[in-house]
Amino acid sequence: MNGARCCAALVLVSTALLTAAPSSDVLRVREWRTKNERQILGELMQLVALPNLAANRADIARNADFLTSMFERRGFTVTRWETKGSPIVFARRDAPSPRGTVLFYMHYDGQPVDAKEWTFGEPFNPAAFKGTMPVDLKAGAGPVDPDVRIYGRSASDDKGPIVAFLAALDGLIAAKATLPWSIRVVLEGEEEGGSPNFDAAMKAHAADVKSDLAIVVDSPRHPSGLPTVFYGSRGTFTATVTVYGATGDLHSGNYGNFVTDPALALARLLASMKDARGNVTIRHFYDGVEPLTPTEERAIDEIPNVDAKLLEQFGLARAEHPDSRIEVQHNRPTLSITGLESGAVYTGTRAAIPASAAARIEIRLVKGLSAETQLERLTAHIREQGFHVIATEPDAAIRRKYPLIAKVTRSSTGFPIGKTSMDDPGTGGAVAAIRSLDQRVVRLPTIGGSLPFSTFTDTLKLPTIGLAVVNFDNNQHAANENIRVGHVWEAIEIFAALLTNR
Amino acid sequence: MNGARCCAALVLVSTALLTAAPSSDVLRVREWRTKNERQILGELMQLVALPNLAANRADIARNADFLTSMFERRGFTVTRWETKGSPIVFARRDAPSPRGTVLFYMHYDGQPVDAKEWTFGEPFNPAAFKGTMPVDLKAGAGPVDPDVRIYGRSASDDKGPIVAFLAALDGLIAAKATLPWSIRVVLEGEEEGGSPNFDAAMKAHAADVKSDLAIVVDSPRHPSGLPTVFYGSRGTFTATVTVYGATGDLHSGNYGNFVTDPALALARLLASMKDARGNVTIRHFYDGVEPLTPTEERAIDEIPNVDAKLLEQFGLARAEHPDSRIEVQHNRPTLSITGLESGAVYTGTRAAIPASAAARIEIRLVKGLSAETQLERLTAHIREQGFHVIATEPDAAIRRKYPLIAKVTRSSTGFPIGKTSMDDPGTGGAVAAIRSLDQRVVRLPTIGGSLPFSTFTDTLKLPTIGLAVVNFDNNQHAANENIRVGHVWEAIEIFAALLTNR
Repeated sequence: MNGARCCAALVLVSTALLTAAPSSDVLRVREWRTKNERQILGELMQLVALPNLAANRADIARNADFLTSMFERRGFTVTRWETKGSPIVFARRDAPSPRGTVLFYMHYDGQPVDAKEWTFGEPFNPAAFKGTMPVDLKAGAGPVDPDVRIYGRSASDDKGPIVAFLAALDGLIAAKATLPWSIRVVLEGEEEGGSPNFDAAMKAHAADVKSDLAIVVDSPRHPSGLPTVFYGSRGTFTATVTVYGATGDLHSGNYGNFVTDPALALARLLASMKDARGNVTIRHFYDGVEPLTPTEERAIDEIPNVDAKLLEQFGLARAEHPDSRIEVQHNRPTLSITGLESGAVYTGTRAAIPASAAARIEIRLVKGLSAETQLERLTAHIREQGFHVIATEPDAAIRRKYPLIAKVTRSSTGFPIGKTSMDDPGTGGAVAAIRSLDQRVVRLPTIGGSLPFSTFTDTLKLPTIGLAVVNFDNNQHAANENIRVGHVWEAIEIFAALLTNR
Repeated sequence: MNGARCCAALVLVSTALLTAAPSSDVLRVREWRTKNERQILGELMQLVALPNLAANRADIARNADFLTSMFERRGFTVTRWETKGSPIVFARRDAPSPRGTVLFYMHYDGQPVDAKEWTFGEPFNPAAFKGTMPVDLKAGAGPVDPDVRIYGRSASDDKGPIVAFLAALDGLIAAKATLPWSIRVVLEGEEEGGSPNFDAAMKAHAADVKSDLAIVVDSPRHPSGLPTVFYGSRGTFTATVTVYGATGDLHSGNYGNFVTDPALALARLLASMKDARGNVTIRHFYDGVEPLTPTEERAIDEIPNVDAKLLEQFGLARAEHPDSRIEVQHNRPTLSITGLESGAVYTGTRAAIPASAAARIEIRLVKGLSAETQLERLTAHIREQGFHVIATEPDAAIRRKYPLIAKVTRSSTGFPIGKTSMDDPGTGGAVAAIRSLDQRVVRLPTIGGSLPFSTFTDTLKLPTIGLAVVNFDNNQHAANENIRVGHVWEAIEIFAALLTNR
């Protein structure tokens, strides 16, 4: 949180010899936590129980109300910044004679859910399990097994960190610890939708959020399980590609061998986008990608290699790029097909050739790339495959003129790439504070996921780090999202160390 | 309906010089129909209003009950043959001193529906429209515009023909016409599901259905709009191919560039199945296909070429096989992708790489091919593309061993190919009777669609023709299925001609 520690921190990184030494403040917070475990988890479950898909305004308002009262109870002054989408909840708590100001970012919205896919509890009716055994946290007293997990949408992404943050503050207040930093917290309500209004809102409120350090708290820890900081996040956007056949579904017997199959034309198009080694074959797709710096390469070299562990965990015979570790691949752009739809495979199948076939293509961006450029490159590729590319439904004249027609639309705004230097002196103190709890902190040049990181680095121009506190196997964005209780406890101590760092 | 006419019929086909000359019986039926139009259409709408997806046993029973009373009202003795699936409704009506027996086949079940896709009425709440204008058939009297259409599931496929058949009989009875043929009618209740129990049931009841001629009434007329008979139907079956990625959906940011994309692997596999000219590239796929006979080739040459009209109607720039007319292509096997599913494109999208991607592949068969052989060839092709092929979900060991895994299952029993000779003397009389109404009758060696044709030709070994009476643009198997009123009228006359043919 200040510059003075930067060099010491970097020395620690490269030697990693010192033993972890939690401060007395952190130890008192730990003591307090052991006496309040069920209350902390109870608050988490209350928060997770609030449905939080950004599209539902009423649900989002209930979350904002609940968060407001959570922060006000801890002495924050809370303001709600309305946007065209979800409101931003802004909380401030000033220190009497602060060393400076630290700004925390977390988000309270969650990914869409498909309740029928959940086997542990329900998305908005959180439940605790150890392994596959249900655990009733309200019954009994005493310590909660750290291997228990709380299941529910946003348990990890990103409500768990909010609760851990406030528990850290509760513990510090209970311990009458000195809080040397003025605190600012922004809680966003549409991160999973690509934070469409966040950057503008933060620009408008730049004076309110002016700080010495921004800490973006989101994302799972590195798969090694170690505490994780990161210096950037990939950008992202999605495009939807729709390929057209006849104007309507056609009887597959009467018109098989007559109408061309839009699903097959789409398959051929998609197959043309990557080679057998997993590299994207769209021309210029990798042009402009900034290479890793020596500092970044060193930081990656220091991280335990988890590729084999991931392959085992995910039941995979090989990685897409077997010769390159995942942390390096996170610094390359991606192209993933996150959706395919045409006709029906399981329910409602008909003996008909569908009128169209569509794919949702997600592209992640790294430093040197923009969504606009990559979308142009994608579109050019589709044209090169012989398609007439359009932006709206084809009319009769277009259908009759072109044998291959693809509608290409950008279907999510996504995030720009955000990345800062690992050598920024403004972030070294915070990293050292985390390291005081565990010398092995993983430092990632960038994470694979996407966050509004660039708002802090590029728009507000603040020294920024990302902080990942939740278990990496939290199933975020999928069914059975969860947070491991032991990770909640460690997150509380990380926040306590950051809030009391001198 | 008898052998004596066969040669005359064939002569007519090749010369097509005579003018149409409806018999006096047919003219009296026409007269009767003009006075009972709204009542005929009312009965059709009642029948169409009964939901008839074969999977719903209670709905199917309601259809069978309704049909039983419809046939009993016309002097038929009705029996219900129970099967493991839907019951077969069997109706018989004997002539006093018959020239012989004629067996009619129709089916009363319908394809699945997606009500939200329907823009004209609802699948089981039939409605009449002329163009886009609603028409109230109950209001007013007088003739109904033949261009009005009745919309609803099975309006054409295959309830419309049942109603037209009984209206013909009503008209003949009202006209006190002599009915020279004993009549047998089998009404099947699971044709759209591939008639899984029909062949065995008919074999068991071979004595009941013994006839001099079988007439399979299903399928739309040839696109020329002319009355249509056919001598075969393609076989069909479907296979579902599922390609696996990780054991669960994975965050596309955290694991993009690490986990291979099952949708892309599936796309690559599907793209390998056809070349750019629309020919299937699976090895041996066309091996064994029996070529058209000179009679069949001549019959096709006599048919008006409708390819250009179809392309315009369906909004297509070109046919899959531009150098070969659709009636020829109906005598080649097909491979169509009727379903694609992976993740989501429109609703419920998540930033996740799906755990699997699946395609439903439909294959149509022609004389010389069996489902078993074509499934083997498909499976061999998938193996040749590098996939480890399995029949059930992959276990952990298989996942860890094989980078490419495809589950291949046969997902519908489908139909065997059924085809008879165009030169069979047992069918010439019936064709001549239809020709008496319109000299230009289209004779198709096979239709593109699939029916239990082989039950009549191969199992029962009866002289068999197929009869297609409904408008070709009926949207069967899709949303907005309909029958044109004018086609109901013409169907009534075709049935009257067949029932009074001497």
